[in-house]
Amino acid sequence: MKDAKYDVLGIGNAIFDVLVRTDESFLAAHGMIKGGMALIDEARAASIYRDMGPAVEMSGGSAANTIVGIANLGARAAYVGKVKDDQIGRLYTHDIRAAGVAFETGPASDGPATGCSYILVTPDGERTMNTYLGAAQELMPGDIDDAQVAASAILYLEGYLWDPKNAKDAFVKASTIAHDAGRQVALTLSDSFCVDRYRGEFLDLMRNGTVDLVFANEAELHSLYQTADFDTALKQLRSDARLGVVTRSEKGCVVASKDRVTAVPAFPIDRMVDTTGAGDLFAAGFLFGLVRGAGHENAGRLGALAAAEIIQHIGARPQTSLKELAKDNGLPV
Amino acid sequence: MKDAKYDVLGIGNAIFDVLVRTDESFLAAHGMIKGGMALIDEARAASIYRDMGPAVEMSGGSAANTIVGIANLGARAAYVGKVKDDQIGRLYTHDIRAAGVAFETGPASDGPATGCSYILVTPDGERTMNTYLGAAQELMPGDIDDAQVAASAILYLEGYLWDPKNAKDAFVKASTIAHDAGRQVALTLSDSFCVDRYRGEFLDLMRNGTVDLVFANEAELHSLYQTADFDTALKQLRSDARLGVVTRSEKGCVVASKDRVTAVPAFPIDRMVDTTGAGDLFAAGFLFGLVRGAGHENAGRLGALAAAEIIQHIGARPQTSLKELAKDNGLPV
Repeated sequence: MKDAKYDVLGIGNAIFDVLVRTDESFLAAHGMIKGGMALIDEARAASIYRDMGPAVEMSGGSAANTIVGIANLGARAAYVGKVKDDQIGRLYTHDIRAAGVAFETGPASDGPATGCSYILVTPDGERTMNTYLGAAQELMPGDIDDAQVAASAILYLEGYLWDPKNAKDAFVKASTIAHDAGRQVALTLSDSFCVDRYRGEFLDLMRNGTVDLVFANEAELHSLYQTADFDTALKQLRSDARLGVVTRSEKGCVVASKDRVTAVPAFPIDRMVDTTGAGDLFAAGFLFGLVRGAGHENAGRLGALAAAEIIQHIGARPQTSLKELAKDNGLPV
Repeated sequence: MKDAKYDVLGIGNAIFDVLVRTDESFLAAHGMIKGGMALIDEARAASIYRDMGPAVEMSGGSAANTIVGIANLGARAAYVGKVKDDQIGRLYTHDIRAAGVAFETGPASDGPATGCSYILVTPDGERTMNTYLGAAQELMPGDIDDAQVAASAILYLEGYLWDPKNAKDAFVKASTIAHDAGRQVALTLSDSFCVDRYRGEFLDLMRNGTVDLVFANEAELHSLYQTADFDTALKQLRSDARLGVVTRSEKGCVVASKDRVTAVPAFPIDRMVDTTGAGDLFAAGFLFGLVRGAGHENAGRLGALAAAEIIQHIGARPQTSLKELAKDNGLPV
């Protein structure tokens, strides 16, 4: 196995976030399921946006947030995702490159606009996402650069890639290349409703070895195994994945391999502002830990630290140096 | 004088803010004058943006920020400013309308893109702005709706309107209509470099009665009268303007009419994050106070409160209810 050029390569839906603080009643009035990610078409996007308050805009996208976090921590990171060559697509491209991430996916020159997620943040800090995939639907297997995948120590894929029509082929193609090059493949289950849509396929990916490492939060884990019992679900996860990492909000996380289970506490916070990106940044810290050869406990702590930073401000991209934050807290960087 | 339909109508350059935290060295490396607003062309915008880190985007524009703050406090507010009918222009239009502001200026269908300001926020919280005016250059006297101006109790204008080529004609036209309808006209001096560009014209506006109320910060006041002595400058301001309000950062503000000078302290803050919009939101609180018939002291306190909210987060649009904040602090709303 050759030395890696990139520590982590992420593939995901490139989505621009439009974030608004709102009351619970807005969610009810618009038939939204709190805490979920709902796919919406252009008409519903227009209708939701029309009713939303003044927003803050920021680049987002689950795997992209993770990859930006990894670069912010100091590792070599690359991203593949599809925007359109429009104003928002150019903001998006700037932001991810400015974060130090290699991003060379050609933008779509026609078709739908760059994807946007309309994110409602309620007073408890919970976020409810309404995503118009837009140009993200145009991600094709041809957007995968074989050499780049083969040169990346970890390939990180989001479950959300099952939503656009051709991205799953890109996903499987990239996974095959990565494994052929002796690399590891990680998957985040993304969202409990996403798991509900693709449960069988996600389980197949784990059981047939397409993915080695799986990230899930509790709701996604329960949805995957259709059980309300955490221990039962965790046991099945340990049987299906080489390594499983389950985030449990303020209860911290559990890192589960075949031979052991390590529980890591959450990182203390002053104030919960917005959970957008909490899971994404947890994955960033954890993967960074793996890349640096940290054990499961320290990788979990790095994940908890990065998640704690992101939930204390609006938006899913770090607003401070995670590397400095990790150093200040005695974690290996 | 008929009852007003709007409490305050603002006219200004409609600018979308692209905000980035950065080190002092970035300013030096790019020849920027810290704390100022520099006008840049498209080439320089591209060059600055290329070197900037990952950003947060938010609607901005000085008078627009003020008008949004006034609406947020609960008054009836309207805005006139020019965007292009492009993606960023549509975000801008959404944000100001969603804030409860009447905004009916027709967007430009061709010509330059919606204006953007590339704003560097240094660790001390100071902001340095680089503004590409874009479509804001297309604001014309024809964009002024005579009836709307006549129906607004206060007309609020920004000194920055002297930069685009036709906006000053719109400014003077609106001021004439307002005075003919028995309304008040307020001007913010905007920026000390802007004052330096148009000192004579700004003094004329004050001395010939085109404006009644003038907002300035200390740097702008010193620039206007080309003196380093605050008391000398304040004395001249009192002679030139019916009412002058000078903001002095952590020293609070001074409200100066012909017959008295009222000093009001700054509102205490936990943490200075970003000064972007501090003066704009001060003006919002102060004008709101005037509209509600508050005395100079309470109007100044409302200004200080709104400014304190805005400098404790990134961006120049309120992230919380100023009305609730004012109530919680025993101020009249």
